Amino acid sequence: VALTKAEKWKFGLTVFAGKILGLLAVLFAMKVLPGMLVTKSYAAETFTAHETNIMNSINTVWTLVAAFLVFGMQAGFVMLEAGFARTRETVNVLMECILDTCLCGVLFWSIGYAFMFSHGNGFIGYHWFFLMGAPDSYETTGIPLLAHWIFQFAFADTCSTVTSGAMIGRTSFRGDILYSIGVTGFIYPIIGHWAWGPDGFLATMGSAGFFLPSLGQPFHDFAGSTVVHTIGGVVSLAGAMVLGPRLGRIFARDNKAKGGLPPAHNLPLAAVGGFLLWFGWYGFNPGSSLSAMDAQGIGRIAANTTLAACTGGLGAMLAALWWGPTKGKFDTAFSINGMLAGLVAITCPCYWVSPLGAVLLGFVAGFVVFAGVYLFEWFRIDDPVGAVSVHGLAGIWGTISLGFFASGQYGATGPTGADNSAPLAGLFYGGGTAILKAQVIGSATIVLATFAVSYAMMWVIRLLPHPWNLRVEEHGETGPGGLDAFEHGASAYNDAETGSGIPGSIGVKDGELVLELS
Amino acid sequence: VALTKAEKWKFGLTVFAGKILGLLAVLFAMKVLPGMLVTKSYAAETFTAHETNIMNSINTVWTLVAAFLVFGMQAGFVMLEAGFARTRETVNVLMECILDTCLCGVLFWSIGYAFMFSHGNGFIGYHWFFLMGAPDSYETTGIPLLAHWIFQFAFADTCSTVTSGAMIGRTSFRGDILYSIGVTGFIYPIIGHWAWGPDGFLATMGSAGFFLPSLGQPFHDFAGSTVVHTIGGVVSLAGAMVLGPRLGRIFARDNKAKGGLPPAHNLPLAAVGGFLLWFGWYGFNPGSSLSAMDAQGIGRIAANTTLAACTGGLGAMLAALWWGPTKGKFDTAFSINGMLAGLVAITCPCYWVSPLGAVLLGFVAGFVVFAGVYLFEWFRIDDPVGAVSVHGLAGIWGTISLGFFASGQYGATGPTGADNSAPLAGLFYGGGTAILKAQVIGSATIVLATFAVSYAMMWVIRLLPHPWNLRVEEHGETGPGGLDAFEHGASAYNDAETGSGIPGSIGVKDGELVLELS
Amino acid sequence: VALTKAEKWKFGLTVFAGKILGLLAVLFAMKVLPGMLVTKSYAAETFTAHETNIMNSINTVWTLVAAFLVFGMQAGFVMLEAGFARTRETVNVLMECILDTCLCGVLFWSIGYAFMFSHGNGFIGYHWFFLMGAPDSYETTGIPLLAHWIFQFAFADTCSTVTSGAMIGRTSFRGDILYSIGVTGFIYPIIGHWAWGPDGFLATMGSAGFFLPSLGQPFHDFAGSTVVHTIGGVVSLAGAMVLGPRLGRIFARDNKAKGGLPPAHNLPLAAVGGFLLWFGWYGFNPGSSLSAMDAQGIGRIAANTTLAACTGGLGAMLAALWWGPTKGKFDTAFSINGMLAGLVAITCPCYWVSPLGAVLLGFVAGFVVFAGVYLFEWFRIDDPVGAVSVHGLAGIWGTISLGFFASGQYGATGPTGADNSAPLAGLFYGGGTAILKAQVIGSATIVLATFAVSYAMMWVIRLLPHPWNLRVEEHGETGPGGLDAFEHGASAYNDAETGSGIPGSIGVKDGELVLELS
Repeated sequence: VALTKAEKWKFGLTVFAGKILGLLAVLFAMKVLPGMLVTKSYAAETFTAHETNIMNSINTVWTLVAAFLVFGMQAGFVMLEAGFARTRETVNVLMECILDTCLCGVLFWSIGYAFMFSHGNGFIGYHWFFLMGAPDSYETTGIPLLAHWIFQFAFADTCSTVTSGAMIGRTSFRGDILYSIGVTGFIYPIIGHWAWGPDGFLATMGSAGFFLPSLGQPFHDFAGSTVVHTIGGVVSLAGAMVLGPRLGRIFARDNKAKGGLPPAHNLPLAAVGGFLLWFGWYGFNPGSSLSAMDAQGIGRIAANTTLAACTGGLGAMLAALWWGPTKGKFDTAFSINGMLAGLVAITCPCYWVSPLGAVLLGFVAGFVVFAGVYLFEWFRIDDPVGAVSVHGLAGIWGTISLGFFASGQYGATGPTGADNSAPLAGLFYGGGTAILKAQVIGSATIVLATFAVSYAMMWVIRLLPHPWNLRVEEHGETGPGGLDAFEHGASAYNDAETGSGIPGSIGVKDGELVLELS
Repeated sequence: VALTKAEKWKFGLTVFAGKILGLLAVLFAMKVLPGMLVTKSYAAETFTAHETNIMNSINTVWTLVAAFLVFGMQAGFVMLEAGFARTRETVNVLMECILDTCLCGVLFWSIGYAFMFSHGNGFIGYHWFFLMGAPDSYETTGIPLLAHWIFQFAFADTCSTVTSGAMIGRTSFRGDILYSIGVTGFIYPIIGHWAWGPDGFLATMGSAGFFLPSLGQPFHDFAGSTVVHTIGGVVSLAGAMVLGPRLGRIFARDNKAKGGLPPAHNLPLAAVGGFLLWFGWYGFNPGSSLSAMDAQGIGRIAANTTLAACTGGLGAMLAALWWGPTKGKFDTAFSINGMLAGLVAITCPCYWVSPLGAVLLGFVAGFVVFAGVYLFEWFRIDDPVGAVSVHGLAGIWGTISLGFFASGQYGATGPTGADNSAPLAGLFYGGGTAILKAQVIGSATIVLATFAVSYAMMWVIRLLPHPWNLRVEEHGETGPGGLDAFEHGASAYNDAETGSGIPGSIGVKDGELVLELS
Repeated sequence: VALTKAEKWKFGLTVFAGKILGLLAVLFAMKVLPGMLVTKSYAAETFTAHETNIMNSINTVWTLVAAFLVFGMQAGFVMLEAGFARTRETVNVLMECILDTCLCGVLFWSIGYAFMFSHGNGFIGYHWFFLMGAPDSYETTGIPLLAHWIFQFAFADTCSTVTSGAMIGRTSFRGDILYSIGVTGFIYPIIGHWAWGPDGFLATMGSAGFFLPSLGQPFHDFAGSTVVHTIGGVVSLAGAMVLGPRLGRIFARDNKAKGGLPPAHNLPLAAVGGFLLWFGWYGFNPGSSLSAMDAQGIGRIAANTTLAACTGGLGAMLAALWWGPTKGKFDTAFSINGMLAGLVAITCPCYWVSPLGAVLLGFVAGFVVFAGVYLFEWFRIDDPVGAVSVHGLAGIWGTISLGFFASGQYGATGPTGADNSAPLAGLFYGGGTAILKAQVIGSATIVLATFAVSYAMMWVIRLLPHPWNLRVEEHGETGPGGLDAFEHGASAYNDAETGSGIPGSIGVKDGELVLELS
């Protein structure tokens, strides 16, 4: 209990460094084994036209309900981010979520979906702009293309909102518009095409005639640990680095007494947001099957998602109890972020691991997010909500964990049911290192490409003249009413302080408490 | 930037007036063309009993999940309305939502559903009171009648809650009970019968032997831009007019410095409410098919709903940026209401328009709501949440927009799939003015009837002795603790101000800040 | 209006006592009639393999969506409980919900599901620990076992969260961990096995060769009025009794002026939580069919659930209007708890009663919760959210009400549809007292067993040394920042009071209002 803050830092970093070294050791020790080739050979059953219509409808209901739940995550995100922010930047958080969502709809309709899901080459799709010329149903899923579109819109919107997390409190609103267009319209859909496009080079990797044929395995990302969360987290990191910290933000290593993240201005808001995100994740992961005819698959995904969230929360709670800033106490913010880290981590492997695997990899994710928050604080990167750790690092961990935990039982999902003829088996289940290698290659490729492109984009926007500069003017950040007043002419709470209901606001002037009646 | 408030007003009103004139010009220029007659000729396919059971179950799952989402909108409404309100009237907003919902269940079970959905004549249904004598399934939908009931209950509840929006802050609670009974038990279901009842005169309009046979088109309102939202908005307008503004409410035209809507007391609450409403709208619109076997239809509705919400938000954001009270800044309240206006507008035409149509008509809705807020402010009508503009005006616009944007591809939905043999085509898609005429007639009929009846009802309740008078006693509005203390003996927030957790409340006495320990 | 508080108490208690006496009179007057034996004889129809797969998928979609909705209730619970709590204990409420959920996932995976749903004997299941050796699908439902698991996990989590309600504000966090393990890992699943396990002695009661064969009826609890809510409420009561009240809590009978529950610190949070709980209940009750092929059944359940919630809210609103602490006013907290009481009550009988039955039994539940709150206040039991009344008492009432209101039309649900060959008929529908007896026996058995076991558990934890003692140290409760600071090193709201956005908190020192800048 008597550890000083410096000692805690050393301890935490030692543990973190050990984990990273261990992870690297495993990766270096990998043998280059040719994995097994996944050939999708759905049972050659024949169905009547009525049966096919019925199955398509069931799958469409499933996909649409899932899409609605994923969209519902926006309510969760806005609560989580606003709750964790300071009061003075809360309205800005609300507006960024609203703007990101509205922009995303228009961009994903006009160009994003085309870049990501239409046919083209391994790097980009180039048909179906404004959804023109697109077929009624998406590929062989039997799902109406517009149902697939709204499901994928909700994913793009998630990535876009994640991005804003580490950039809270000092981004100008016009800068936000610019980078949002870049992320939603170009970076997410184009890089996403690599992994999820019908001919993306990471999706076709490992097959004869494609990228790295000797690998024998494509990159797997069932619901987007990498495609959605890591991309979002890495863009957010690039933004936070280009922006620099909020004015007045003191880092833990610079002042042991006063340093560290400002406390959440509204923890109930943040906690409810966390639960709503978990709720919405039940669309995110199970819905990514695009098929309810694979009943065993969607049941397994839902159970795995639950278990990883639970152990992620417990992992981060324990880490913070043992080594956190309020050592010996049970920290709420870390617990919430731990649940989310477990969810992010299970998002990639949810279909292929057993419940035991989900329990273990989620638990690790809780520690990953704890270590990540300390790591970025040490690097003096101001991430007000822990977005880079939750979505970036836990996304990387989850993606790679498939290489360890794939249970060797489950292969591919499809519109009439599962095809487990070529199951994925990870290192811990006797499957060798082929999947692990594919996952590391896929994750590293996307992380590096995303970081390079988004850093360049942020850097360019940072050079623009005000008000289009990425960072808000200094007086916009520190003036009366803060960013909310400067950018939006509003404050989050009004006349709430005066129980009598008389409109007015309590403020501080010259260190004195004053009431301004309005 | 240097425009005075008066100049802004003039500018905004000029733009608004121009839009109205343009709209009227289009309407006046319409030629009276006989439209094409929609005959529902579902493919005469035969299904086995098992197939029929299965399809009925899929459609029931779809309808029930949609009903649950629509009910979930109550959480969104209560957040939106409470967030936009002042602190002193917040508990009252909560209680009105609770009461409206509870009353609505009992009334829609006993009389509302009977008036609206049972057979009778063109003006009213008169069977199935207390659901007695009703069949197991509703008409030819294959949906259990009780599943249809809960879906429609959730719609009635929405209309009821919309109504309370413009009447916040000065309605007595007993007055609220009285008008709620009127709206939920009589006005909504009876007028709704005209458009949605099995033999409603607007539903059968345009066919030989019915109302306006030469028109050749019935009134179309897929999910209730008019039936739910315009009725709710118009009743709310009548209530606000009869009530007069809240005491102390200063209008913009009366005082340039201090006039205008009081700021939202809790913007995060309002913004989250907006997102939850959008989430629930995915039940409202796609669920109105009552059929998941029409997979293409529900996918299209979901995508259209999304796009209209996005462009509605962008439209209002731009309008407020260019001409709003915080000109040059990005206004949160208008952005939220813009999203909602886009959702309200797409509610009627969601099945029949293309994504491009949804993008355009949603964008216009954003400007409609902006102009509406200015319009009612100018008329000195105190609408604390913009309910009349969002639900009333955007509902009218959305209803009429079908006449322009119906894409000529889609006809009618049904329990076994779509029947596109007689597609609807609007003016912009070469379909002439028949649909436009039918929509204007239907919208105008319902607006006028609703306004007349609800104004009369509100006027009568306004004559009753206290406490049954529509308007609360003056000391109930201005006394200590405001309406919340007077009607409910409570305040929204308690001891929140004292970070120490000591129960007490901060108030203002003689202009001084005081703390009352309790 | 001029009644004194003492007179109000007398009046309320008289009414309550009268109701209890009436109920007892009915119970004593019961004749021991042999009921009719329910034999599940599903129609011996044959289905093709494709049809079976399709029906299983529909039922799985239904079960999973319902599971997600039930999980979503956690967001509702955390809002309701945090909103009703005092500010100083709010973070603790958040953390208990997070911890309970995370623990529940791990425990229900490792042992809970095994105890509850695996085969064993009448008292406990003892297979499938860590889900090992479990079949792909649960029993004859056709539902994947993991889909059944997540649905039941969400139920267990609900019970666990209910438990924390009456123990808010003085339970140590490590004590919470200990009793949560007891409730989620042992008490709930083992006692739950009696009613819901494949061979539980209350589930098989009334058949030849089992418990009380002469009864002729098993215990019925469709969705858990008893299994989930009463167990949760009774454990909570035991905890509150062992803990004693919060320090400084004054009961109404001890001080007429200052006594009574501290006001909700955030009523909007509580009200929204109430609506989200109602929303989630649409998974709880309709989903408990585990079958969407029983379309009539799930439609009826959804409608009944709605109606009971509505009349429960109205009942409690009227009770509080007539006899409550703010007599003559419309009380929000009672209205919210009334809706929840209606929902709890309909949870058991939702499948077997008519809409009229739901209206009536929900209305009674509203009065039950009102009387319960007074009853426990009189017994000086500090239940900050009314959990014991809402979940315990209304759960008992709902369970017993089946004996009165079962309409004699509906029998059992199943994966291919309903089997109404042996419908349940209650006393009011000419069915005699057999069901009533079975319900009283089942309810009493579970109430007594739960109370005994949980009281013993709480008592033992109360004897442990700090910090593992059930009750937090005195200075943890009363020190600066309250329980939140002591256990979690955090406060719910930070810098919210200073509209200027300057971090700091307003507190009270020596009766003076002070601002501490941080």
